[in-house]
Amino acid sequence: MRIGFWMQILIGCGSIEGQVSFYYNLGAQKRSLRYLNIATPETCLLYPKVIINLRLMNDIVSFDKVSGILVCEAGGILENLSSFLDNQGFIMPLDLGAKGSCQIGGNVSTNAGGLRLVRYGSLHGSVLGLEVVLADGRVLDMLGTLRKDNTGYDLKHLFIGSEGTLGIITKISILTPPKLPATNVAFLGCKDYSSCQKLLVDAKRKLGEILSAFEFLDNMSMDLVLNHLEGIRNPLPPTMHNFYVLIETTGTDESSDKEKLEAFLLRSMEGGLISDGALAQDINQISSFWQIREGIPEALMKAGAVYKYDLSLPVEKMYDLVEEMRVRLGNSAKVIGYGHLGDGNLHLNISTPQYDDAVFAQIEPFVYEWTSNHRGSISAEHGLGLMKANKILYTKSPEIVQIMGSIKKLLDPRGILNPYKVLPHSLHS
Amino acid sequence: MRIGFWMQILIGCGSIEGQVSFYYNLGAQKRSLRYLNIATPETCLLYPKVIINLRLMNDIVSFDKVSGILVCEAGGILENLSSFLDNQGFIMPLDLGAKGSCQIGGNVSTNAGGLRLVRYGSLHGSVLGLEVVLADGRVLDMLGTLRKDNTGYDLKHLFIGSEGTLGIITKISILTPPKLPATNVAFLGCKDYSSCQKLLVDAKRKLGEILSAFEFLDNMSMDLVLNHLEGIRNPLPPTMHNFYVLIETTGTDESSDKEKLEAFLLRSMEGGLISDGALAQDINQISSFWQIREGIPEALMKAGAVYKYDLSLPVEKMYDLVEEMRVRLGNSAKVIGYGHLGDGNLHLNISTPQYDDAVFAQIEPFVYEWTSNHRGSISAEHGLGLMKANKILYTKSPEIVQIMGSIKKLLDPRGILNPYKVLPHSLHS
Repeated sequence: MRIGFWMQILIGCGSIEGQVSFYYNLGAQKRSLRYLNIATPETCLLYPKVIINLRLMNDIVSFDKVSGILVCEAGGILENLSSFLDNQGFIMPLDLGAKGSCQIGGNVSTNAGGLRLVRYGSLHGSVLGLEVVLADGRVLDMLGTLRKDNTGYDLKHLFIGSEGTLGIITKISILTPPKLPATNVAFLGCKDYSSCQKLLVDAKRKLGEILSAFEFLDNMSMDLVLNHLEGIRNPLPPTMHNFYVLIETTGTDESSDKEKLEAFLLRSMEGGLISDGALAQDINQISSFWQIREGIPEALMKAGAVYKYDLSLPVEKMYDLVEEMRVRLGNSAKVIGYGHLGDGNLHLNISTPQYDDAVFAQIEPFVYEWTSNHRGSISAEHGLGLMKANKILYTKSPEIVQIMGSIKKLLDPRGILNPYKVLPHSLHS
Repeated sequence: MRIGFWMQILIGCGSIEGQVSFYYNLGAQKRSLRYLNIATPETCLLYPKVIINLRLMNDIVSFDKVSGILVCEAGGILENLSSFLDNQGFIMPLDLGAKGSCQIGGNVSTNAGGLRLVRYGSLHGSVLGLEVVLADGRVLDMLGTLRKDNTGYDLKHLFIGSEGTLGIITKISILTPPKLPATNVAFLGCKDYSSCQKLLVDAKRKLGEILSAFEFLDNMSMDLVLNHLEGIRNPLPPTMHNFYVLIETTGTDESSDKEKLEAFLLRSMEGGLISDGALAQDINQISSFWQIREGIPEALMKAGAVYKYDLSLPVEKMYDLVEEMRVRLGNSAKVIGYGHLGDGNLHLNISTPQYDDAVFAQIEPFVYEWTSNHRGSISAEHGLGLMKANKILYTKSPEIVQIMGSIKKLLDPRGILNPYKVLPHSLHS
């Protein structure tokens, strides 16, 4: 789940060398300033900046009901766009916990992942066009509304996920899927991580086209949610299971989908992949199952300090890191693992009563080195921002980073757009 | 449907300024040399070139059955990769008529579309990583096998669809969907184009997750296939309909999918959107329905000379162009319209007994201007290549093309990779 943000632009005022920057308000998950400052170069403080918020640029430009293509301005709040589409019988291809405050321009410039990725793919697939303002004020009209267009290099992809360092996204054309009427959610207990993996393989094959989410959490995550959030209960009492899996299906036919899911759960239970399970009987139960999964970040905040890592790893290796981290940290911290198993995306969270430099030194750079050794990504969906800009080499080769630097120079030669972010500081100067 | 090609590289030998070029063997659809020369600058003939064929680089590097991620070398034939995956219970996310000869490296460097795009999206969504050799010999390792990776600019997208002008793709990591057991195909007659459109909207909503293809052809296309190909018959005799639609569903459950499709067809028949229809009863009928749609290019070749256009247009305007072209050309040519309605992709073909400069002058630049005026793309899936490189401005703005030129200069400063292609000739020099 992507952390909350809204898009702002800092524009130079008064300094000789104006600085333009995007700043993501991390909302409830905002790091302490002390923590942020670890990665902040001193020059960051030298230049004045002006924030431009795109919030008022929130018009819907057009919507085509035949193709499902929405064109809108960048300041539109994700939830508002979802409501608009709901009335038309469509949905946004992405959904995330911060939908009530995040803007679609921010979603696209950070390549937000979220809960629907396993079904509808990444924004590189669903964004069809962009309008972007470059650092020199040129407006790039790439606002195509076509599913297919092979006329030259597809430049819009450079801006998707570049976190505002190459240009300011002002308009978006996006392919939206039709809203399907039947949603079913099951909450399952599994005895080990290997069972979760096998369940995923089976779900992809047996549920196939109706599978819309496959999320997992470990018992530490469950424990945390039960202890720190009001009104949440384990749907599978009273035994605690080592792992929990949430499976969602979305389709056109309520009864046949439910039948398919029930048959799948029965077979998985007989095969020993599931120890116990509950199938939501109504919309309230669907919502309460999701609350467990979506409540983890909030529970972590309430539990004290938290060191958060958003990693992509090969599915079969993913949980090894959680276990190694537990051995490494012993009793000094709680190590929590959960995430989008269907996408190979682990949210590794380490919880301590308060920030502790000794714990931090045990975590980093170990977590990055481990990820790098397993050819993973140190940022699956949250981006590099300020804190991880200098850590890009754990995931990308020097040749690749050097080309990124050349492209940054090409599009923003004075380095005024969102300085210090994404690329190593040496490439920003 | 993408025309057949195989990837070759022309490397300079003997000349002071070596030239590297990709050349796509167009197979059965190869243009006459005369036609190709229209767009070939004279300098093209001045420099010797060497062709390197990647055919022998066809190893499968790895396949992960949990995630469905295939890593392979660029020379692998699409059909061979499909057969390999079939044994593992997976399919390639793209399928095209030329699968028996085209190489996956060529598919990716031309961003091939094909028959499964409506279901599985474009290669920008399913390709997860690439290894690319740059013009100066540097090997860019972007061969990630992760569904999510937000660490810097996603450079692989520059190479997808750049037709070999920025680098030579040598390895590919691609997400492959599980093979689903149930396929159903219906072949339908519609009275007008508006009915085809309404049928598409309904199919997306009612068939939703199982819809895997929605193709259309007009009665001129049907007539051509019936007259020029052996052993093909109209499944809806004896009346000719103005339009035909082929709908394919793919899912996990044969009987419930068929039930769903039958109910949909019944409702559409009652609502007057379909005039007549046939549902394939076995694999042979499925294949014979597809032969009609896939046979059109071959029938066109047999009918004489053909002027081919592969356009993306807003679905509701798409067929207007076919009708306007008919009025424009009168009795001098047959104007055929068919394509991937679900993707807004029209294959406009103009058939004459032999090439005729007067007909050609009536077609171009009219067809490009019309497409440009409707914000369409002059190349939906076939790419620009040599013949359309100078026509890029019909779809992309001068600012965008200028940035493409800068990126070309950045990655291939001597312009040795596939010269004269994709970008206007002025940017290659």
